[in-house]
Amino acid sequence: MATIKDVAKEANVSVATVSRVINNKGYVNHETRKLVEDAIKKLNYIPNELARSLFNKQSKLLSVLIPHFGTEFYSDLVEGIENKAMKLGYKIMLCNTQDNPQREADYIQVVQRYNVDGIILASNAHNAEALINSNLPIVSVDHILAENIPSITSNNLLGGQMAAQLLIKGGAKYVLELRGPSFLLTTSERSSGFRQSLVQNNIPYISYDGDLIEPDIEKIKEIIIANPQIDSIFASTDFLAINALNIVEKLGKNVPQDIQIIGFDNIKYSNLVIPAITTINQPIKKMGELALETLIKLLNDEQLEEFHQILDVEIIERESTIQKD
Amino acid sequence: MATIKDVAKEANVSVATVSRVINNKGYVNHETRKLVEDAIKKLNYIPNELARSLFNKQSKLLSVLIPHFGTEFYSDLVEGIENKAMKLGYKIMLCNTQDNPQREADYIQVVQRYNVDGIILASNAHNAEALINSNLPIVSVDHILAENIPSITSNNLLGGQMAAQLLIKGGAKYVLELRGPSFLLTTSERSSGFRQSLVQNNIPYISYDGDLIEPDIEKIKEIIIANPQIDSIFASTDFLAINALNIVEKLGKNVPQDIQIIGFDNIKYSNLVIPAITTINQPIKKMGELALETLIKLLNDEQLEEFHQILDVEIIERESTIQKD
Repeated sequence: MATIKDVAKEANVSVATVSRVINNKGYVNHETRKLVEDAIKKLNYIPNELARSLFNKQSKLLSVLIPHFGTEFYSDLVEGIENKAMKLGYKIMLCNTQDNPQREADYIQVVQRYNVDGIILASNAHNAEALINSNLPIVSVDHILAENIPSITSNNLLGGQMAAQLLIKGGAKYVLELRGPSFLLTTSERSSGFRQSLVQNNIPYISYDGDLIEPDIEKIKEIIIANPQIDSIFASTDFLAINALNIVEKLGKNVPQDIQIIGFDNIKYSNLVIPAITTINQPIKKMGELALETLIKLLNDEQLEEFHQILDVEIIERESTIQKD
Repeated sequence: MATIKDVAKEANVSVATVSRVINNKGYVNHETRKLVEDAIKKLNYIPNELARSLFNKQSKLLSVLIPHFGTEFYSDLVEGIENKAMKLGYKIMLCNTQDNPQREADYIQVVQRYNVDGIILASNAHNAEALINSNLPIVSVDHILAENIPSITSNNLLGGQMAAQLLIKGGAKYVLELRGPSFLLTTSERSSGFRQSLVQNNIPYISYDGDLIEPDIEKIKEIIIANPQIDSIFASTDFLAINALNIVEKLGKNVPQDIQIIGFDNIKYSNLVIPAITTINQPIKKMGELALETLIKLLNDEQLEEFHQILDVEIIERESTIQKD
């Protein structure tokens, strides 16, 4: 492969001049620039981005921290981020923290070592201080890290309210709320909105906090058997909702006649099970794209119109809830 | 942040000496090494991996080319790759080609510019020649790029045979084969094995080649309506199988009594729909881990025990096929 020295020799200029042309820094007269560009073309020279990044102080490399790959939410989110990055000339270093504090801490070190330009934080941070102290531009998505770190989230509170109102409209008298861990922003906000609406309407509920990736099926089954008055279920995610549907049907109950079910996310499988699951749609890919755009604005010292962007959600009414009008 | 110059000053040695200590290259006496290491610790100096990679000619950065994020297969595969990479001290640059020849070509350029150490190719290559000519170590997974490029695949041929035999055992007399595009290795091998077994048993079949990510539901429905003698369906992937189940049930037919269905992959949703889908399990995460391990062996000039590794598959019998015995 051709090196910068080969280009300099071919163009009969110094390496420093070639470097100035490649990096668009410093003065190079038009004629010399042309000579260098022709030599680059002729030799099919590919500048080493790592060497450039040392000179430019920009690697055009961004890190995305995610807690796992186990749900469609993160596939869609990363797809949105990576799409936009490609368009804007940035590359993605993917960091799967597995929701493990040590792995996350290791990755924060890696990010600094690799001269990464910025971070999209799509996981619940265990090392919030280390992240903030890294002095790297950060945008959080689906979570909020701190008041002074920009974020992109969905209107989880409103989503929870919408879910409750739809179940109440369908005749809910006693509700089971299946949540993720309550320290997650999404879980706690969806739950707050949901409970608010139930309380306002004097509807009793019970809640169960469980794992979002590997839900405890036996435990959920026990709860449903022990509480036969349950006529409605709100699940924090569609994956939980699909699990709930499976459990309820295997118990010989009909959805939605005996038990209504509503999920959150609008993943594609929510529309492939029978009955199709009613859900709250959040624009997952768009969240990823916006997070990337916001990070690039930070890198370019551009003004952010909104520091904490909250995206609209909408209800997608399908067959797992009772439609009354 | 502390620089290498600060460390040199603190330890009262030259920058070149600090560099030798950090990179473990060249002779440094024990005492001096201790001085440098103490200075690094005291100043909390983090060496810049980019600068190191220019010196070492190794970036410890690997690229993974995938065609999309739309199916669980790639989430599981990337999780396997990234897990193993983290353990072995490598980082992953994720490249989603979107099965687009231009995006793929762009990424091949990027990989060279960033001094990436090697590539895991998990997509069907549109620029096979450019990849091979890049002279970068490559391992292909779920695909075969060339005779002299190591690969990790599942025994797709055997999987197809197993699927056919199970359907025949369940009484199949007329089969619909729902395939992905026939230029994909996985599709063509699964199909070859499947058809072989059907032909040996004189079972007639019809085939439909469609998109694996956004299947044409209306078209599949038409085919099933137009061919009422269909009593069994083999789908190239579980996602297609779940779509087929949805279509068949909405047509008022019972699975497996009227139509048996069998998929491929063993994704988690195949066990969450009712009836649960019988499928061929392939060890997706393990494929990712092995691909990464094989690539590291190539980087270290280690001998490969097997150049083209073919992993075992197994049948997971569930409720969507008829069990006779």
